[in-house]
Amino acid sequence: MTKSFGSDNHSGTHPAVMRAVMDANTDDAVAYGADPWTERATAELRRLSAAEGGVYLVLNGSGANVLGLGLLLGRHEAVICAESAHINTDECGAAERILGTKLLTVPAPGGKLTPELIAGRLSGRGDEHFAQPGVVAITQSTEVGTCYSLAELRKVHDFCADNGLRVFMDGARLANAAAHLGCTLAELAEHADVLSFGGTKNGAMGVEAVIVMRPADAANARFLRKQHMQLSSKMRFLAAQFLALLDGDLWLRNAGHANAMAARLAAGLAGMPGVEVVYPVESDAVFARLDPRHVAQLRREWTFHVWDEATSVVRWMTAFDTRESDVDDFLAGIAAATGARPA
Amino acid sequence: MTKSFGSDNHSGTHPAVMRAVMDANTDDAVAYGADPWTERATAELRRLSAAEGGVYLVLNGSGANVLGLGLLLGRHEAVICAESAHINTDECGAAERILGTKLLTVPAPGGKLTPELIAGRLSGRGDEHFAQPGVVAITQSTEVGTCYSLAELRKVHDFCADNGLRVFMDGARLANAAAHLGCTLAELAEHADVLSFGGTKNGAMGVEAVIVMRPADAANARFLRKQHMQLSSKMRFLAAQFLALLDGDLWLRNAGHANAMAARLAAGLAGMPGVEVVYPVESDAVFARLDPRHVAQLRREWTFHVWDEATSVVRWMTAFDTRESDVDDFLAGIAAATGARPA
Amino acid sequence: MTKSFGSDNHSGTHPAVMRAVMDANTDDAVAYGADPWTERATAELRRLSAAEGGVYLVLNGSGANVLGLGLLLGRHEAVICAESAHINTDECGAAERILGTKLLTVPAPGGKLTPELIAGRLSGRGDEHFAQPGVVAITQSTEVGTCYSLAELRKVHDFCADNGLRVFMDGARLANAAAHLGCTLAELAEHADVLSFGGTKNGAMGVEAVIVMRPADAANARFLRKQHMQLSSKMRFLAAQFLALLDGDLWLRNAGHANAMAARLAAGLAGMPGVEVVYPVESDAVFARLDPRHVAQLRREWTFHVWDEATSVVRWMTAFDTRESDVDDFLAGIAAATGARPA
Amino acid sequence: MTKSFGSDNHSGTHPAVMRAVMDANTDDAVAYGADPWTERATAELRRLSAAEGGVYLVLNGSGANVLGLGLLLGRHEAVICAESAHINTDECGAAERILGTKLLTVPAPGGKLTPELIAGRLSGRGDEHFAQPGVVAITQSTEVGTCYSLAELRKVHDFCADNGLRVFMDGARLANAAAHLGCTLAELAEHADVLSFGGTKNGAMGVEAVIVMRPADAANARFLRKQHMQLSSKMRFLAAQFLALLDGDLWLRNAGHANAMAARLAAGLAGMPGVEVVYPVESDAVFARLDPRHVAQLRREWTFHVWDEATSVVRWMTAFDTRESDVDDFLAGIAAATGARPA
Repeated sequence: MTKSFGSDNHSGTHPAVMRAVMDANTDDAVAYGADPWTERATAELRRLSAAEGGVYLVLNGSGANVLGLGLLLGRHEAVICAESAHINTDECGAAERILGTKLLTVPAPGGKLTPELIAGRLSGRGDEHFAQPGVVAITQSTEVGTCYSLAELRKVHDFCADNGLRVFMDGARLANAAAHLGCTLAELAEHADVLSFGGTKNGAMGVEAVIVMRPADAANARFLRKQHMQLSSKMRFLAAQFLALLDGDLWLRNAGHANAMAARLAAGLAGMPGVEVVYPVESDAVFARLDPRHVAQLRREWTFHVWDEATSVVRWMTAFDTRESDVDDFLAGIAAATGARPA
Repeated sequence: MTKSFGSDNHSGTHPAVMRAVMDANTDDAVAYGADPWTERATAELRRLSAAEGGVYLVLNGSGANVLGLGLLLGRHEAVICAESAHINTDECGAAERILGTKLLTVPAPGGKLTPELIAGRLSGRGDEHFAQPGVVAITQSTEVGTCYSLAELRKVHDFCADNGLRVFMDGARLANAAAHLGCTLAELAEHADVLSFGGTKNGAMGVEAVIVMRPADAANARFLRKQHMQLSSKMRFLAAQFLALLDGDLWLRNAGHANAMAARLAAGLAGMPGVEVVYPVESDAVFARLDPRHVAQLRREWTFHVWDEATSVVRWMTAFDTRESDVDDFLAGIAAATGARPA
Repeated sequence: MTKSFGSDNHSGTHPAVMRAVMDANTDDAVAYGADPWTERATAELRRLSAAEGGVYLVLNGSGANVLGLGLLLGRHEAVICAESAHINTDECGAAERILGTKLLTVPAPGGKLTPELIAGRLSGRGDEHFAQPGVVAITQSTEVGTCYSLAELRKVHDFCADNGLRVFMDGARLANAAAHLGCTLAELAEHADVLSFGGTKNGAMGVEAVIVMRPADAANARFLRKQHMQLSSKMRFLAAQFLALLDGDLWLRNAGHANAMAARLAAGLAGMPGVEVVYPVESDAVFARLDPRHVAQLRREWTFHVWDEATSVVRWMTAFDTRESDVDDFLAGIAAATGARPA
Repeated sequence: MTKSFGSDNHSGTHPAVMRAVMDANTDDAVAYGADPWTERATAELRRLSAAEGGVYLVLNGSGANVLGLGLLLGRHEAVICAESAHINTDECGAAERILGTKLLTVPAPGGKLTPELIAGRLSGRGDEHFAQPGVVAITQSTEVGTCYSLAELRKVHDFCADNGLRVFMDGARLANAAAHLGCTLAELAEHADVLSFGGTKNGAMGVEAVIVMRPADAANARFLRKQHMQLSSKMRFLAAQFLALLDGDLWLRNAGHANAMAARLAAGLAGMPGVEVVYPVESDAVFARLDPRHVAQLRREWTFHVWDEATSVVRWMTAFDTRESDVDDFLAGIAAATGARPA
């Protein structure tokens, strides 16, 4: 079976994570998080992110996003986000369903919001007829594989703070951003009010963390997590996954490796006729435009998503377990499908 | 460390389940359930429950309950349930928060609803001022460790069918009921329209199934599961847990063992002065009344919940991994705390 | 046609209110409340209630209750209320549907909550499995026609303030309470954080006010009112109704008259065999128990509600336009139906 | 005071409507719609629209829209609508808040959806990650003053029926469309599954009707109306307004007059330099682009809204009570402000 380039969640669980899960299977432990694994994992995540609010482990990415937004949103408020945001396009309307909020979307080139783009959505504030934005949601790394630089994050966060807006950072692939930027988790986290930190796409079996930077925003986190059906009873098995990822910075090494594989893929595509990389490759994704017939040909043997049928743009994801040879084989496949000669 | 009698989710994961999870960690698999593990687990669960609608794996018990109710409730409808129902007392108001529904509660002796109790909540139907019940939620086995007999289930289900009500069965401990009644999963499932079937309290790491008996009720199940943040990306690791539980009827053996341990505990309490068992012991729980001072004394060494402080009733749960010697040690502890001499 | 004793909203509109509505029908006015009628009505209501937050006119009683609760509730919080509360029994589950909140009900003799009754619903605070009460909802005058004394209100409010709970007062019949207690609106309002002040049952065509005592609780009131579909476009016609009610204390005179008619009815019933008044008559309602056959007989000619079929308790409401002769005729009817001789 | 061109709800109540309200103020009437006025008004509306489901009077336009959508939406479903739709831009996110639905917006030239535009929003159907459209919401007449022709409505409706979509028609200004098209209410209604029929902007004090074409869609209408806080207690005063509007086709005459005044305004603008009418004038609105300085100048004496600041497009609304001389005075004012010489 060829390596999937469909998603970083087509991969299984990193062996070290699996081992940690097994090792946690010992004796009884009090349920719902009052166990030593959870205590250690959340303490360590707090330390790494310099979060003064709290850290809440949840079951998946949608759960992390909806909980994170819910902690920041006033009952009547709306969310500004990029049109391409996962919360807008890939969660079946969960934010609207669960939070009753409206997403005020902005076309965002490269998946990134800027103060200017946000400002364009602020008309009508104070007028009861218009939806009232209270939170700006950004994704780091973005859905199209780009990363906000720390300076870009700071600009967004400062603008939001100046304008009475809170920042939620969807960090399903935050590790990839940290690896790309060469920065710490805390340097990313300081530009958000609440953020998620994804484990699943980075080698975990299934766990995400919601990180709350300030105590005031964490006051009802435990209750909302429960109401949102995101509280795990045998929590130690979630916590153990994060402990493994944090041990020896495995999270950063996994992400760095996935990023490197995407860079290798992009490098191999450079100069390949008929393949145009359409976004900067700054994490574990390569977005490319190629002829629809070549796409169809390539999909006979390889697994990946067509991102936008209209423009024939595809998404190729790498993962913590993608090997150099997988990339090279895939490059050969692409070259064959497009009639190019591999570099 | 002494065995916990606090909850069946204080236990870890059954070794066979853990092995299945490990064994599923091989190569890539398409995410979100389009994998062979999920296909096999759901097919097998459908077969065992004779469900014609579908089977949907979810992440925890609250998720299963809220999704199950959501599949059956009209947008405006309310739920009739026992006051002691888990959805009413233990989920932080998740059903109200997520579904916007009202729970019409009934004091139910022994945790069980009857046609008479349900009928008492039906006044005001058709009057727009009153909440309109559309679903009756029962728990099998109940929150106080009792089981509906098949005849009792049939009566409730027939009454509901005759009165335009659908039945949701919270089966977080359905395995314990099957073991107690000596019946099949299908014999239980046929008395519900939608039910949950719990894995977590029966040896899984964390997985539940929502079983939909009729296709019409399953039409939006996949979408609601996603909106409810209950769709796992690396679904194979949920499915593998159920495959292990289903293999050789491990689910039934685990539940039968837990039940037997509760029965052993109850037998040991018989005739012990100062300890009164307050509900029939029909699953993996023993509810007992004893002097508050004895409770306090016993909790110094043993883990369990005080169920009702006012009446000094405690709950002692067994689990798939409770050993006979654990029960005997605990009985000795109870005898010592209450000043009784062990039987 | 005989006078209805069915409800104070079976009456039409007080002539002075109707005149004010007609008089407001002059020239154009900016919509949605930016008109001089609304400015004057809300300013006057603020003054009378000594509210520092704001006053928001809404379209009906359910709208007032749900908006009022929504202003006080944290996203995850629940409401403690009497089992007999209108929000629990008469609004088809609107609070749950619109706010996603859970009502934690308490059997309350005479419809009134006390610190003791509230305290009994506070176990489980801080435990994420339990619904977390954030607001206590009381009704003044209550659904069974009784009134909290100012001392009783103070006790409830003080207890709530001491326990981190906010008080919402459903004042659909607040005027009747003010008339009964001989107190000002401000003396009632000071014991709530948010309250409604009903116009409709007191001679208006259809308008209620939501009064917010503190600015912090009013921050999102305009937006929630709009989202709750309670913002009227031609607002001047709502405001004009309140202006008429406030003019010369018509609100208080109307309520006082209705109360007097209920008192006259109760006095006439005293000593009438076969009729037992079951609650103190402290507003515009008389609740009485009489033989079901007598109820049936009486309903052939008179309009009123059976409050509780099981106990054969009926509710007789007076209104601003009930005349002494209506009461006397009704008393004669009751006497005839019960076989008693009128006093 | 100059006539407002700000909105058709800046006008007061038509004298005939006011008279009907006064005339309804006689004796008692059972509350919540069980009165003869409501019976007659809803029967007549059913007849005029050939609706087999039912007619439900509500309190305002947002209430009508949210209730109407709620009757058609499955619990998990989303709504396709024009970006310019009132439900998207002017209701503070009420649909999302109350229904938990997602609005899938489409840029729609002239405010009108077409099968092609709708089709462009249907990708991802059946995929649980994407929001699932179930209802298409159109506005007739539209928010920019245009009207769907009957043929255009038929195309939209047929496309929707063929694609498993229901049609909701926001008819806050449906009367204006009927007057423009010279068609009956039934000819418009037959292209919707549920529609609203606005009274308020057409001379009523405040009332809208939700018209349900098929019985199956009306099954929970009464309950949802109550939960949505749209049930009026003294309903006769709502019904009386519609009775007046229906009497002698006042609704059609009012709308026809307002349309004629808009046409007169547009005619007067023709050839006026510096004023560009940007949408076909097919109801009671004229949208025009003029220099921002001229806008500012004109607003010193006249009331109207700037529709789009970026493009300096303004909205001028007429109403049932706009006189020819008002239009002519306004034209003179426009000419003066723009430096043009009036035609």
